[in-house]
Amino acid sequence: MRVKLKIEYEGTQYAGWQVQQNALSVQEVLEHAVFQATGQRVRLTGAGRTDAGVHAYGQCAHMDIETSIPPEKLSYALNLVLPEDIRVRDSRRVPDDFHARKSAYAKQYRYCIYNAPHAAAIDRHTCAHVRQPLCEQSMRAAAAYLRGRHDFAAFQSAGSPIKDTVRKIYTLEVRRVDDFIYIDVVGNGFLYNMVRILAGTLIEVGKGLRTPASIAQVVQSRDRAQAGATAPAKGLALMEVFYEQHIQ
Amino acid sequence: MRVKLKIEYEGTQYAGWQVQQNALSVQEVLEHAVFQATGQRVRLTGAGRTDAGVHAYGQCAHMDIETSIPPEKLSYALNLVLPEDIRVRDSRRVPDDFHARKSAYAKQYRYCIYNAPHAAAIDRHTCAHVRQPLCEQSMRAAAAYLRGRHDFAAFQSAGSPIKDTVRKIYTLEVRRVDDFIYIDVVGNGFLYNMVRILAGTLIEVGKGLRTPASIAQVVQSRDRAQAGATAPAKGLALMEVFYEQHIQ
Repeated sequence: MRVKLKIEYEGTQYAGWQVQQNALSVQEVLEHAVFQATGQRVRLTGAGRTDAGVHAYGQCAHMDIETSIPPEKLSYALNLVLPEDIRVRDSRRVPDDFHARKSAYAKQYRYCIYNAPHAAAIDRHTCAHVRQPLCEQSMRAAAAYLRGRHDFAAFQSAGSPIKDTVRKIYTLEVRRVDDFIYIDVVGNGFLYNMVRILAGTLIEVGKGLRTPASIAQVVQSRDRAQAGATAPAKGLALMEVFYEQHIQ
Repeated sequence: MRVKLKIEYEGTQYAGWQVQQNALSVQEVLEHAVFQATGQRVRLTGAGRTDAGVHAYGQCAHMDIETSIPPEKLSYALNLVLPEDIRVRDSRRVPDDFHARKSAYAKQYRYCIYNAPHAAAIDRHTCAHVRQPLCEQSMRAAAAYLRGRHDFAAFQSAGSPIKDTVRKIYTLEVRRVDDFIYIDVVGNGFLYNMVRILAGTLIEVGKGLRTPASIAQVVQSRDRAQAGATAPAKGLALMEVFYEQHIQ
């Protein structure tokens, strides 16, 4: 049967989601936990790859598995053997044609900035520190130029093999809560490093290094060199993956 | 000159605020940082002792020091040598009669509960996990019996030497944000473990093990055995210490 997992992790200690040689990935730790809990060797398919240091509150993945553990109890069995920085929040049976990546119609990411003279102690692993005061009104004005359907080629890491760089951003919100600035973005898909480049560009707007209106030209340029720096991985979290209602 | 520091720390790795033998305290690490940065051996006086595992966003402390570093630059000098889980958020000169503990007229603590079937991964060090669904409306109703001036003897760890157990709680608020429940309390002073016992008692109300109205009798009893369990240290954070305006 096919089982969908919803997974939270702090990415600090991992080389990202995807299995790779000579470095511990979240996927690998989860697959090992499945083996420990069920005796089954499975391959997990994640909704999206997260880079080293990137976190997730709502990563999703599917696997095909035969086990006597009821699917909705697998989360408990896996959490008994997983390290504390990875938790399975939910497990359930899904139709055999469900695919964690291909069935997703949208994803939400959050980029968190700690905007204060000194770095954060408690939240040091989950936000990027920006010392210079940021104008969130300007960042919000700039965000308006990024919402909607655009060719985001300028917001993709150079050398990426993806040809079709058109994506749709449904919502892109910037809000300040005390010293924290949150950038929440929901889109139908994201290019490699796209959210971190969006965040880095909005940070430059917040610093006054770019005007909000200039962002329209960055989009039009389709040139990575026109966009801002890639913001640090640790500020990024995959919040949610959206599927059709019946398999939420 | 007397200098006031405002300090943030994640308490996970420390045996609490106060210097003690055979265990690393936040105070000790700070005093060592002052020595590294200025060559001066000082003693810090904190606004309140936090236990092992308890965090602070706004602990305050004072010290007497003679140094050529301007007081408002000391925070930068200290953060260069402090570990990442301790940050000095602000440093400033204060009058010689300022006292971090005695001059404080109120303190704010936050207790954070993660109320979901599985523990949190990302926030595992900064919230207490409660699996059973909590009714925050009941917790809010119970909080009403705790606000104001009361003898909080029932909410003090047994064997505490404090004689005068009357304290005033100015605000006590319970709010849910998704799977998190925050208990915010501002008072003129707190007995040993008082906030953790308040939180533990409110959690029992939220589980339906106690009625909100029964809390009035717990207060009246002045008996520690009548109150709830002491909630785990990691859910607690000292948010702010309040002083007269001119030394905020």
